[in-house]
Amino acid sequence: MRVDVVGNVNEVRRMDIAGRCVVVIDVLRTTSTIVTALAYDAADVIAVETVPQAKQLNVKDAIRGGERFDKKITGFEVGNSPYEYMTPSIAGKTIILTTTDGTRALIKASKAKHVLAGSFLNVQAVASVLCELRRDILLLCAGDQDEFAMEDGLCAGSIIEELYRQSPFPIMLNDLGLVLHQAATHAEDKLPDLVRVSAGGRRLERLGRMHDVTYCTQLNLLDCVPEMGEGNRMQPFRGTRKERMFKLL
Amino acid sequence: MRVDVVGNVNEVRRMDIAGRCVVVIDVLRTTSTIVTALAYDAADVIAVETVPQAKQLNVKDAIRGGERFDKKITGFEVGNSPYEYMTPSIAGKTIILTTTDGTRALIKASKAKHVLAGSFLNVQAVASVLCELRRDILLLCAGDQDEFAMEDGLCAGSIIEELYRQSPFPIMLNDLGLVLHQAATHAEDKLPDLVRVSAGGRRLERLGRMHDVTYCTQLNLLDCVPEMGEGNRMQPFRGTRKERMFKLL
Repeated sequence: MRVDVVGNVNEVRRMDIAGRCVVVIDVLRTTSTIVTALAYDAADVIAVETVPQAKQLNVKDAIRGGERFDKKITGFEVGNSPYEYMTPSIAGKTIILTTTDGTRALIKASKAKHVLAGSFLNVQAVASVLCELRRDILLLCAGDQDEFAMEDGLCAGSIIEELYRQSPFPIMLNDLGLVLHQAATHAEDKLPDLVRVSAGGRRLERLGRMHDVTYCTQLNLLDCVPEMGEGNRMQPFRGTRKERMFKLL
Repeated sequence: MRVDVVGNVNEVRRMDIAGRCVVVIDVLRTTSTIVTALAYDAADVIAVETVPQAKQLNVKDAIRGGERFDKKITGFEVGNSPYEYMTPSIAGKTIILTTTDGTRALIKASKAKHVLAGSFLNVQAVASVLCELRRDILLLCAGDQDEFAMEDGLCAGSIIEELYRQSPFPIMLNDLGLVLHQAATHAEDKLPDLVRVSAGGRRLERLGRMHDVTYCTQLNLLDCVPEMGEGNRMQPFRGTRKERMFKLL
């Protein structure tokens, strides 16, 4: 199984994506928020690139969420903090989400065979789905304002470590994957401290949102794996029919 | 002291370089080779971007060296293996060097205040010069065929670790620097094994040059720090006059 890591959304090329499972990782905070919203029973999360597109999208009873410059968008019901999605009122609702880096990365990955949302919250569950899908993998770190983001890289490294534990197939990594795996294997017990000093972590601290960093750096809190379907709609992965049949045999 | 790391030569922007000390890192093998050549008393190493430029450059008694596709260039006296420069016959000679990634990175960095060549071989010595120069730092990983190269990243992480040991000033890292430092602090005792599986390491192994990988992954074998001067000429760093006077006080 080939596992490549790309360091930020601008570096990804179409050939990196074709035929692969792409895991989009935006720990602070888009993919952590999507996993949380679906774990709290949102019907789906639609990833949208721009604010006007999010406003125009006509879905009954939808909740509009997201951020620009880490702050809630004017006129939207919620921002991009996972805490805003931990409420029974989102159950059954569609979330229309647009963020600076995360939703852009999801949309850029949409031509892949499968697109999943990864975060520290669901590392084990993501690796388990990847092993089930048995395809070459691209771990796409969304990054932070066009730069590599430490927390996304460490999360990619944690997913690689989990793939080594779970995969029955040999794993071939690119050089960024090798070094991130090396970094992540020694980081598990100090994730909140490490991520606190990243560019994104420091910025959220200045905005008084340190609790977001603490929440988003919890390993394997949830077993929900958002998968992108038609219309960039993210819903919990339930397996393809072929894989389900395979498992029954 | 600000310390930023850039993951490959294509990502570096002019604003990253201006007024800084730039350490160019191409472990396999350009900067390891330059350090070795100067440690073996070559008069200087001139970094040149293209093969025609290297051929046209008219320097008396010069030795032409370098590689394309990891192999010696036709008509050149030597290739890019550090072993080819470990001979008394290079003493006092000028080396004209052109390589795929390393010399390109050196030339791209040439607008910086100081340009140094870093490798595993001279980590401590490079950090010591950086502390003496007291400027913001860019660690420029040359990369491998336009991609991030694991060995360059780990070397950047090792230089950061050494800066933490030696620097009297606080160090502020960008996110790539943070993660590479994290990776490197646990890699020191297994560098040859780690680098052997990188893209560059595997390619050199296929070419029967595993001994180059073994040599280039030795930490602090040499205390020579090549610095770039006029005409992209690399010579051992001997300190600026101001810094020397400061040290005398």
